[in-house]
Amino acid sequence: MNAELLSVGTELLLGNILNTDARYLANELAELGINVLHQSVIGDNEARLIEALQLAISRSDIIITSGGLGPTGDDITRETIAKALGKKLILDEPSLERIRESFSRMGRSMGKSNIKQAMLPEGCIILQNDWGTAPGCIVEQGKKIVVMLPGPPRELYPLFAKTVRPYLSKFSEGIIFSTSLREFGIPESTVQEILDDLMKGTSPTLSPYAKEGEVQLRVTAKAATEEQARKICHPVVDEVKRRLGNAIYGEDVENLQQAVVQALKKRNQKIALAESCTGGMTASRITEVSGSSEVFECGVVTYANRVKEALLGVRQETLETDGAVSEQTASQMAEGIRLKAAADYGVGITGIAGPGGGTAEKPVGLVYVSVSDGKDCYVRRLLLGHGNAEREFIRYLSSSNALDMARRMILGIPQMKSAVRVDPPRPQNPGSYFGK
Amino acid sequence: MNAELLSVGTELLLGNILNTDARYLANELAELGINVLHQSVIGDNEARLIEALQLAISRSDIIITSGGLGPTGDDITRETIAKALGKKLILDEPSLERIRESFSRMGRSMGKSNIKQAMLPEGCIILQNDWGTAPGCIVEQGKKIVVMLPGPPRELYPLFAKTVRPYLSKFSEGIIFSTSLREFGIPESTVQEILDDLMKGTSPTLSPYAKEGEVQLRVTAKAATEEQARKICHPVVDEVKRRLGNAIYGEDVENLQQAVVQALKKRNQKIALAESCTGGMTASRITEVSGSSEVFECGVVTYANRVKEALLGVRQETLETDGAVSEQTASQMAEGIRLKAAADYGVGITGIAGPGGGTAEKPVGLVYVSVSDGKDCYVRRLLLGHGNAEREFIRYLSSSNALDMARRMILGIPQMKSAVRVDPPRPQNPGSYFGK
Repeated sequence: MNAELLSVGTELLLGNILNTDARYLANELAELGINVLHQSVIGDNEARLIEALQLAISRSDIIITSGGLGPTGDDITRETIAKALGKKLILDEPSLERIRESFSRMGRSMGKSNIKQAMLPEGCIILQNDWGTAPGCIVEQGKKIVVMLPGPPRELYPLFAKTVRPYLSKFSEGIIFSTSLREFGIPESTVQEILDDLMKGTSPTLSPYAKEGEVQLRVTAKAATEEQARKICHPVVDEVKRRLGNAIYGEDVENLQQAVVQALKKRNQKIALAESCTGGMTASRITEVSGSSEVFECGVVTYANRVKEALLGVRQETLETDGAVSEQTASQMAEGIRLKAAADYGVGITGIAGPGGGTAEKPVGLVYVSVSDGKDCYVRRLLLGHGNAEREFIRYLSSSNALDMARRMILGIPQMKSAVRVDPPRPQNPGSYFGK
Repeated sequence: MNAELLSVGTELLLGNILNTDARYLANELAELGINVLHQSVIGDNEARLIEALQLAISRSDIIITSGGLGPTGDDITRETIAKALGKKLILDEPSLERIRESFSRMGRSMGKSNIKQAMLPEGCIILQNDWGTAPGCIVEQGKKIVVMLPGPPRELYPLFAKTVRPYLSKFSEGIIFSTSLREFGIPESTVQEILDDLMKGTSPTLSPYAKEGEVQLRVTAKAATEEQARKICHPVVDEVKRRLGNAIYGEDVENLQQAVVQALKKRNQKIALAESCTGGMTASRITEVSGSSEVFECGVVTYANRVKEALLGVRQETLETDGAVSEQTASQMAEGIRLKAAADYGVGITGIAGPGGGTAEKPVGLVYVSVSDGKDCYVRRLLLGHGNAEREFIRYLSSSNALDMARRMILGIPQMKSAVRVDPPRPQNPGSYFGK
């Protein structure tokens, strides 16, 4: 069973947006054991879309389109595919009612142009879209299957997971099972060298996927049942954990922030954050995790020095002598916010994210990250991006490093070698925000 | 002149990585005035790669491949394309020497497998790769042009910019000029209805692109010079601005946060943020803008009620009677952080981002957003998503709404109709963090 992806949208051809849908669908289909041999991008153009569909039908069993189901005149996927398949479009009243309701819930009335979103090919399976207005659909044409999905990822992902995945799973031969380990701190090329022999295996396969300072290691096996597939994966998962040690921060964990929130929840502990150059990004990453309110009550973004003094008790003489970007300021921020917020752990981040503000002594990319539990305080000096990195990259990696230091401290495992231990500094006015 | 992109790599078909190369190349070609009508992804498979190349040559003038130039057995682009074009591969000594040198600079010796990276199609134009080992090449075959580039973005981007862009610019017919207007607050379907006639135009074209509650409106014209193209765009840009009015938040501005930072800089004013459900996302978005430190000194993430009281002066009786998610709490947060941080504007955001925590009376997606300048305070009640939206979507839209309210207040333009004006509330302990 082969599938083919047709991504429809001029904005993709113009390079306005990344094709995240294709990646998501390819990934999902691989897990279902359905091969994807072709992916194409086509503009909102009737003739070329029909051509692409015909080519796809000639060589693939399942064709999945994404995009072009919106209300505007540019959105022609529904009409064009129906035409190419010789199907009439029929108004689906329940879909229209759903669209109308979703507008009225937002206190708006539905525009006329939205009506066409409820026009669907005759005899299709309707995919009810609870995440947006345009329903998707599945058209079965002889032995070929055409699936049409809306383009916005926040609609396509859940719609696929809830409706198309169960539908397609009956065509999948056997089960593909994957489990993911994630590591932070060992560069991709080193991971490759350490795991070289394991990566040559075919059952299970081990594939690295590097992104923003982390490597995800995906272990995948195909078998008749999930249990069998799990058994095939098991020894390689164990061996990867053994070789990469503490750098592995989780199995089937989404990201560092989730690992941190989980570790805190288990221990019924709280963390507080003081951020300068990352400007709230670490707080935003932690609060992205559902249920983080149990472990995170308070974060401050202290861009200005006077705010570092007033809200964190960073000493004026430290800011004057060592500067806002220094080991001393970072550690006072970490221990300061811990005391002020009456939390178990405090994190401090200060650095130069650029593009301006760098000097020869303190270049763009210089960041100090600190974590304190009141007994121990660790600081790491980072020099990110070889003087060439972008602001967002520096900020993201700084925040990842802070999360990893917190994870290590919470779990009681050693910090990275480059971390320096200092005695927790005593901030000026050390009382908490909440009085005695 | 039409171009077509062929992305080669099984990791793309499996959804292991995003196709960032295709996006980059599409963008660059659009700017050169070269139309991209097709993009395809193909695995590392000889038969299918030859098929894809032949199809591409049959319909496009320029074919750009990316990927598959590495040293491993999987990397077959060079050999396969040369074979399909009937060209011999010839060892290019200078390229081999460069590869050998790059290994010795890293203190390693070159492996045998790397030799094939210096084997290039006879008569090609060699593209010297200063960012990796594999050189690219251009093969001119009659009137068709085939360009092969390495896959890693950190090699492809600079190699394209330095060698392929100048080469292709001679084929570009005139200049394509685009300018973007961005609006927040009017739904895509309504924008479509308002601008319907303008969107039917062909010179300039006007295309809407909706994303996360905003619509980007791109006005594009092709002409001999940029000045001429600008002139063609001008009347449509003005007309769009006239019809959408205050909802347009900028021309050639990247996003709402940039619009807010620019407006504040111009007036030499400062903003402070108090975030609950958005958990630092608004602060992170503002500090993503380079130079934001001039207008933003201080933000707080106040998840817990006791932090809202202690850091913002939100009244205990408000939290008890009206609740943390209420108009009253939002406005006290906005005015509270404004006073505490001694800023010109304060923003308060409180709501239920889900998936847990919703009730019949206060469902997931209910968010109050407030902005205050000490004279006026506005609050908007939002009900985001269709009761089904994801946590990150609710957080993002809440933060966008807050940024838009701030923008309107800074610029002195009316708030949206659904905003309610209240007198700026007096927080308990109204002093600033900095004493008198």
